[in-house]
Amino acid sequence: MTTTTTTAQERMLLAKTASRQVGLLSDAAKASALRAIASAIEAAAGEIVTANADDIERGRATGLSTALQDRLRLDQGRVAALAQAVRDVADLPDPVGRVLDERVLANGVGLQKVSVPFGVVGSIYEARPNVTVDITALALRSGNAVVLRGGSAAESTNRALVAVMRGALAHEGIDPEAVQTVDDFGREGARELMHARGIVDVLVPRGSAQLIETVVTESTVPVIETGAGIVHIVLDETAPLEWARDIVVNAKVQRPSVCNSVETVLVVRGAAERLVPPVVAALHSAGVTVHGDEQVSRLADGIVPATDEDWATEHLSLDISVRIVDDLDQALAHIRQYSTHHTESIITQDGMNADRFLAEVDSAVVMVNASTRFTDGGEFGFGAEVGISTQKLHARGPMGLAELTSTKWLARGAGQVRA
Amino acid sequence: MTTTTTTAQERMLLAKTASRQVGLLSDAAKASALRAIASAIEAAAGEIVTANADDIERGRATGLSTALQDRLRLDQGRVAALAQAVRDVADLPDPVGRVLDERVLANGVGLQKVSVPFGVVGSIYEARPNVTVDITALALRSGNAVVLRGGSAAESTNRALVAVMRGALAHEGIDPEAVQTVDDFGREGARELMHARGIVDVLVPRGSAQLIETVVTESTVPVIETGAGIVHIVLDETAPLEWARDIVVNAKVQRPSVCNSVETVLVVRGAAERLVPPVVAALHSAGVTVHGDEQVSRLADGIVPATDEDWATEHLSLDISVRIVDDLDQALAHIRQYSTHHTESIITQDGMNADRFLAEVDSAVVMVNASTRFTDGGEFGFGAEVGISTQKLHARGPMGLAELTSTKWLARGAGQVRA
Repeated sequence: MTTTTTTAQERMLLAKTASRQVGLLSDAAKASALRAIASAIEAAAGEIVTANADDIERGRATGLSTALQDRLRLDQGRVAALAQAVRDVADLPDPVGRVLDERVLANGVGLQKVSVPFGVVGSIYEARPNVTVDITALALRSGNAVVLRGGSAAESTNRALVAVMRGALAHEGIDPEAVQTVDDFGREGARELMHARGIVDVLVPRGSAQLIETVVTESTVPVIETGAGIVHIVLDETAPLEWARDIVVNAKVQRPSVCNSVETVLVVRGAAERLVPPVVAALHSAGVTVHGDEQVSRLADGIVPATDEDWATEHLSLDISVRIVDDLDQALAHIRQYSTHHTESIITQDGMNADRFLAEVDSAVVMVNASTRFTDGGEFGFGAEVGISTQKLHARGPMGLAELTSTKWLARGAGQVRA
Repeated sequence: MTTTTTTAQERMLLAKTASRQVGLLSDAAKASALRAIASAIEAAAGEIVTANADDIERGRATGLSTALQDRLRLDQGRVAALAQAVRDVADLPDPVGRVLDERVLANGVGLQKVSVPFGVVGSIYEARPNVTVDITALALRSGNAVVLRGGSAAESTNRALVAVMRGALAHEGIDPEAVQTVDDFGREGARELMHARGIVDVLVPRGSAQLIETVVTESTVPVIETGAGIVHIVLDETAPLEWARDIVVNAKVQRPSVCNSVETVLVVRGAAERLVPPVVAALHSAGVTVHGDEQVSRLADGIVPATDEDWATEHLSLDISVRIVDDLDQALAHIRQYSTHHTESIITQDGMNADRFLAEVDSAVVMVNASTRFTDGGEFGFGAEVGISTQKLHARGPMGLAELTSTKWLARGAGQVRA
């Protein structure tokens, strides 16, 4: 089912209209629609992989890095995983219609605050065909229509995926206009999406810090900022060596390319001699390049001198920055200066310092004695993750389906007027 | 205590720094600070009224309308009311530190989602000195610093109020930089406030539709849109005459200048003959000018012909637009076209139509058989009102203190790493 309308604006208006139907669907109808999409994706795996090969070929020709080519690539196995992810979302409970507050006014008017779909969810992202399917599944499960802008590198793949998903919706008796792409309109499509205030209710950018910055700065549609993570771990004076070593290595090495991996370790001076040598040794054994300040270099071999830029860098690689700080105050000041407000953790056995860290660090997730890798919708038990919000409005930290809903007050009276 | 720094940016950074202290204040300390502010305002009533006289004089000289002059004017009685409003906010429960979600992961990591202050709340508003005090009290009560831009018409008054409030904070041992104004910097101050992303956490515009539109369009700081209300009441076929008449008159007449007053009445054709004559007569008796379509004119005397523009107008005066619609479908379509998503109400005894109205109308507050004037933080029992959000992100409908908080996840482990 291909789209035939001619402007981005028209498509977004069709999504808005379709959102009225999708917003009223029952739990069962939404789950069934998602299962139909999953099956359709499996059935169309061949054509999806073929379309993807076009994108890969074009990427190779235009010099796309092999890392990006890998992120872009879909094979039969990855297509099957996409379909399974949609089924997993189908299995989640309906986030719509929850009663979040209830009160009866003195005059007898009954009030209920209930969760409702946003309406139309927009997403701008880059070279990640899995987002095309994930965000569509999450949006539909929460009763929303979706407008996608997936970028030119994945254009053929996204076109194929969108056509398959629209076809499945139509087959289920649901308006296929609930799933739209503005990819055909290039940068102008992205621009129109960012300015579709009144049509698109919320915009979720996913991708590089630069992409997110562009969307945040240009969009007049309300944005949920996701992602960038310059994540810190503080090793306090009382940090047990085993916890310090295991958590730092896990937070850096388990999956270095993601936003919740640690970038900077701050070691309180009183613990430096005890902790720096074994922690650095463990990082080196795991293949990590350690960028350290002068004092770190004195305590361990093989340290790359850290520059000021290191503290402000989200490496997303097997690189880590290590600094010795005088005390917790200096650690907190460093975090205030460089944190992207995603996740920070302290390793300590001092209850007062733990409480201070939890209270004073201004990040979406603040931890004591745990790996920063736990900042994740799946780990938090949400069953799915829309992204990790690093802003304070609406949602903060890992976002599940509930964060793709808004609220509405329902008032039921019997003729009451205001005195 | 006057401000001495020289740029808007510097002042906002001082507010950011002060927000760390204010965010950690105890419930009692915040309440005590507000009571000190209330007393200081009362003690300084003379100088506040004198400063206000300057603004009024300048307003008169520059041709400010008498309605705006009235909104701007502070006398001893109004100053006392301002102080009392601050005490009322002091008496509200602390919105910070509530545990909103709690879970223990299988690996033993304990998670808590707690409410935390935003940090720095900005507000841009016009010629309403009461907002200077109200928004400061609400921000401080919820642990936030505040940056104000109150417009040139109230400049002297706002300067006096801010100085008094800062003095009271300093006297309480709280960093007075928690209350800032950028009024001295004119339009450039407003512009810098709208672009202070990373310093100011949320911006709440209050005032005309045009002011709100400007802020929404220009700001890179996340905005909570408030206010505009083209509010509808539908008189369904089964609407009891008494409820229809009382609710329409109350919703229009009780306070026509506010956003929750009704602007348009849609009468379902089957009820038109029965309801239009008595409802119009009651409106006329109350001094309301009724703008009606042709069919309304046929059913009642003294109708001003309605233009298409009427349906899109927030009168905020003793004017009301009345249209006959074929059925509920047409009423819903009219609302979709013209509503500002604030409040709509249906008067009906038909449960199916009531349910459909509640489900399908996409507004912050949707009512059955009640006056739209109930959309109000005070009426909802919030004890205070930051504004009425007409957007879907973060807050929708009347906002109380809780809506001036964000959340933070606290994670407490004992060395756990991700497998």
